Amino acid sequence: MSVSRYTYLGPEGTFTEAALRTLPEAATREVVPMVSVPAALDAVRTGEAAAALVPIENSVEGGVTTTLDELAAGEPLMIYREVLLPIAFALLVRPGTQLADVKTVTGHPVAQPQVRKWLAAHLPEAVWESAASNADGARLVQEGRYDGAFAGEFAAATYGLEPLVTDIHDAQNAATRFVLVGRPARPAARTGADKTSVVLWLREDHPGALLELLQEYAARGVSMMRIESRPTGEGIGRYCFSVDCEGHLTDRRVGEVLMALKRVCREVRFLGSYPRADQVRPNVRPDTVDAAFTDAADWLTRCLDGRA
Amino acid sequence: MSVSRYTYLGPEGTFTEAALRTLPEAATREVVPMVSVPAALDAVRTGEAAAALVPIENSVEGGVTTTLDELAAGEPLMIYREVLLPIAFALLVRPGTQLADVKTVTGHPVAQPQVRKWLAAHLPEAVWESAASNADGARLVQEGRYDGAFAGEFAAATYGLEPLVTDIHDAQNAATRFVLVGRPARPAARTGADKTSVVLWLREDHPGALLELLQEYAARGVSMMRIESRPTGEGIGRYCFSVDCEGHLTDRRVGEVLMALKRVCREVRFLGSYPRADQVRPNVRPDTVDAAFTDAADWLTRCLDGRA
Amino acid sequence: MSVSRYTYLGPEGTFTEAALRTLPEAATREVVPMVSVPAALDAVRTGEAAAALVPIENSVEGGVTTTLDELAAGEPLMIYREVLLPIAFALLVRPGTQLADVKTVTGHPVAQPQVRKWLAAHLPEAVWESAASNADGARLVQEGRYDGAFAGEFAAATYGLEPLVTDIHDAQNAATRFVLVGRPARPAARTGADKTSVVLWLREDHPGALLELLQEYAARGVSMMRIESRPTGEGIGRYCFSVDCEGHLTDRRVGEVLMALKRVCREVRFLGSYPRADQVRPNVRPDTVDAAFTDAADWLTRCLDGRA
Amino acid sequence: MSVSRYTYLGPEGTFTEAALRTLPEAATREVVPMVSVPAALDAVRTGEAAAALVPIENSVEGGVTTTLDELAAGEPLMIYREVLLPIAFALLVRPGTQLADVKTVTGHPVAQPQVRKWLAAHLPEAVWESAASNADGARLVQEGRYDGAFAGEFAAATYGLEPLVTDIHDAQNAATRFVLVGRPARPAARTGADKTSVVLWLREDHPGALLELLQEYAARGVSMMRIESRPTGEGIGRYCFSVDCEGHLTDRRVGEVLMALKRVCREVRFLGSYPRADQVRPNVRPDTVDAAFTDAADWLTRCLDGRA
Repeated sequence: MSVSRYTYLGPEGTFTEAALRTLPEAATREVVPMVSVPAALDAVRTGEAAAALVPIENSVEGGVTTTLDELAAGEPLMIYREVLLPIAFALLVRPGTQLADVKTVTGHPVAQPQVRKWLAAHLPEAVWESAASNADGARLVQEGRYDGAFAGEFAAATYGLEPLVTDIHDAQNAATRFVLVGRPARPAARTGADKTSVVLWLREDHPGALLELLQEYAARGVSMMRIESRPTGEGIGRYCFSVDCEGHLTDRRVGEVLMALKRVCREVRFLGSYPRADQVRPNVRPDTVDAAFTDAADWLTRCLDGRA
Repeated sequence: MSVSRYTYLGPEGTFTEAALRTLPEAATREVVPMVSVPAALDAVRTGEAAAALVPIENSVEGGVTTTLDELAAGEPLMIYREVLLPIAFALLVRPGTQLADVKTVTGHPVAQPQVRKWLAAHLPEAVWESAASNADGARLVQEGRYDGAFAGEFAAATYGLEPLVTDIHDAQNAATRFVLVGRPARPAARTGADKTSVVLWLREDHPGALLELLQEYAARGVSMMRIESRPTGEGIGRYCFSVDCEGHLTDRRVGEVLMALKRVCREVRFLGSYPRADQVRPNVRPDTVDAAFTDAADWLTRCLDGRA
Repeated sequence: MSVSRYTYLGPEGTFTEAALRTLPEAATREVVPMVSVPAALDAVRTGEAAAALVPIENSVEGGVTTTLDELAAGEPLMIYREVLLPIAFALLVRPGTQLADVKTVTGHPVAQPQVRKWLAAHLPEAVWESAASNADGARLVQEGRYDGAFAGEFAAATYGLEPLVTDIHDAQNAATRFVLVGRPARPAARTGADKTSVVLWLREDHPGALLELLQEYAARGVSMMRIESRPTGEGIGRYCFSVDCEGHLTDRRVGEVLMALKRVCREVRFLGSYPRADQVRPNVRPDTVDAAFTDAADWLTRCLDGRA
Repeated sequence: MSVSRYTYLGPEGTFTEAALRTLPEAATREVVPMVSVPAALDAVRTGEAAAALVPIENSVEGGVTTTLDELAAGEPLMIYREVLLPIAFALLVRPGTQLADVKTVTGHPVAQPQVRKWLAAHLPEAVWESAASNADGARLVQEGRYDGAFAGEFAAATYGLEPLVTDIHDAQNAATRFVLVGRPARPAARTGADKTSVVLWLREDHPGALLELLQEYAARGVSMMRIESRPTGEGIGRYCFSVDCEGHLTDRRVGEVLMALKRVCREVRFLGSYPRADQVRPNVRPDTVDAAFTDAADWLTRCLDGRA
């Protein structure tokens, strides 16, 4: 039954699965790997799954454009949770293999720039060939096609391999952000350390529109955490913007920003308010706390009644 | 009984009285000249008068600071009406006087810069001495102290004088704006061509605060029509701002501006929404009409309910 | 000979004269009181005087509009110095008069709001009548017309009077700012604690123009210290702006602001850069120090040369 | 010799080669396909090639992140030309194949979303498998592995195939933008219809920095044409911005924007000013034409000299 099923970007043994396993409820769900982000999300849209976990942003590679575009177009979906996973690779080998024996290595193309420096330092002679996924690379090592695979350490057991070296990552703080996506419903409850995501389409006839849009956030002291432009498919120079900001839809300052964007933009798609994985609580200016908005509304009512 | 009494900045025969006479209800009110703007307004504060008509702005001399300061401080008052009076002077003389006979002229000090060029062209030899008011100058001509007085043409009859020359004004479009002030109550009804006045005190610890304040107007497409800085009396460099904008408190865009100012400013004093004397209706951007605000609020509710 | 003559707003014994006396060079100048601000400034324009000291701003009464308007119109003039004078009144009486004997008091109309509370507390029965100036009030006490005059303590000797009470001022920090005005020449030398004054006329066809103008200051981290709107005389709703900011014309950030204003405004009148009376040195953001501008210009040159 | 060699993103028969062929000078150059964007650009960095043509933006897929990241990091490079190529696919088949015979099709993964609707309408039963490039797909058809390949019509001859259907593209106005990249030197000459590209790193301690940066463009009337955020590799939430604007470095308004960005940003990398492929000339506000800047600078000099 679908309520108990979560899809994710497969195959098994990838970082996405590892991210999914960090969610407590994953233990009681049927988790199903899918071949692509669209496939994982379509299972949610059709009701075959209750939710899907997909990567949305990588600190080395940037936004995962398939995910961004899938959330911006088609039947609406909403984000209910985010997971932040530090990315560190292990070099997985068949039991008994020594570092000196490793002549050929594999992994997902995205992994390569993240282990390039390590390879140059420790295996300068090794030949790299790309695999369809990190997990697939592990399988190919199991089958003997390559000597080593870069993958998550957790993938070793699945493929009967051993982690020869662990914690490999060229960039400090390398991390991937994943989101748990479901069909539209009430947003996740406010925790005080929340994030709100939208997609914004500017009015076409308005050159300074992006500036105006950022001012709506700034005027209410709401910090923007991520902004990415994505083509709308209508031609070169036509974009929409995928934006995350701090705060929850039920925070007055955030609700006011969203209403202003709704007026100013051609279209706004609300993608959800959900707990921040880093649990950081924002610093709110005194003039934008909830009480400041309530007081101002009360005062306006008094003005209208002649009691100000 | 006070409801039927209107005070105004006297004496009789001044432009303020002429402005008051343009109000239809003035015909059924007891109209009482007062010696000063504070005196006219205090009569309203104490309940001796229902309203007071006072000058607030002159296209040649600028803001009438006494009026601005009285409205900003003390017991709150509200503006319910404005009157715009073109200012043109008549040279009032005793019957029979010819232009060549006029050797000495008088008038209120404010009148002088407005007739200076005319004097230089037509009566270059005439000596000017100031009077306490234009009407008082007329009285002094009646008494024979001066040969001519610059005053409103309407003052001639009161003092048994004749208008020798009319429509004298150095500056094109010279006009004075007067406001009808009463105790706080429900604002004047919206007409679609309205104006809203406030006094704003910035937070002390905020250097770019004036800029932010103007952005609150601009972000909602509300045109500012007048802004004047006035000292707060707390020392050099400490100001409040007297601001008029187009629109009525019940226009959503104006209400939103006022609520934002209320949050951002140390203090906001609402001085009223009232019909514009020039009856010009503003051009409202499509994203700031009332329906745009209502639609955005409805959409936010749907987002909160998971139905967006 | 005019180089040695300074005019000031007279008569003798006023606060303006006291302010003038604080300038070291005043000791070696012929100082001449004039009947009005325009008269004092016209003497400079015609070359009869090298400079004029006139009040420009009062912490209780606000901008001195005659001075602001004279500087904005007519033959250009420039400010070379400012003087800040704390305003405290003395009650001057004929020798031997006791406080209980004071039944009638006088002073300049501007003085009245500044001593009103003191009067209510200490001489509630005394009758106030206005004089043409504080000094003139002292003269009238000398002549026996009134029992006491509110004036600067320094005026006592001139009129053979005694200060019965000193340091009277309702508002804390009451001060008047005076400026020393001359014909246009090189600005005063930079001291590091300077102020720059301009008059700005917005383009008529540009509703958000005031906002843009403030942004030019803000974008370069230049704090605005005073802004006053003044009518242009072209009709209600037509203003120019008199603006002081921190910094000197030779500070790069200030020069850049002025050039931007010159482009954006219909007209800019430069009124001078001169030492701040309060000697406060501004806090300059790292991105707007002179070196930041020089570095940016060097870098642009390298870009143009293909060496960036 | 390297001056005569241009590299491009290969293999032969791709749209990049077609774009390169639109450049007149390509006829006299040795054009060399490379296996990747980094490889094409590294050949320029090492001096093996004079320039490289690489895709930078696709109206369906968005920014080409490899190109953006290569231009932002490593040894500096500069853009000297852009080419805009409408993207339309042809279905290439072996001579004699009819539409009804086509059971399997191939092409680059990027091509698939651009022909999906066409496939659903005309070959709903056909099975898609991805190839390494569109040209590689054509080769596989030649070898008989697939019945049809989606590629540029120009690739047919190279592989002995026939275009069975042409001008296939799901999205109207689908286009790809390519840039010709060389080592840093003087920018391309100004044509009046130019574009300027930069990469901007915000100061870390500055939340509203993106807004400020956009204001520097807006304040000088310089339209932004593309903005993309890219991770800096320092962790989630750390971005740089790749920005194109209209105008040439030698346009005063553009030079002023760049100098302001240089001051405000942590780092600015100038990527070149070059002719716009669409040859559109910008609308320049009267206050930001070159003469407006020159006049303002002259006026500032006069102010400094006391001749304003």
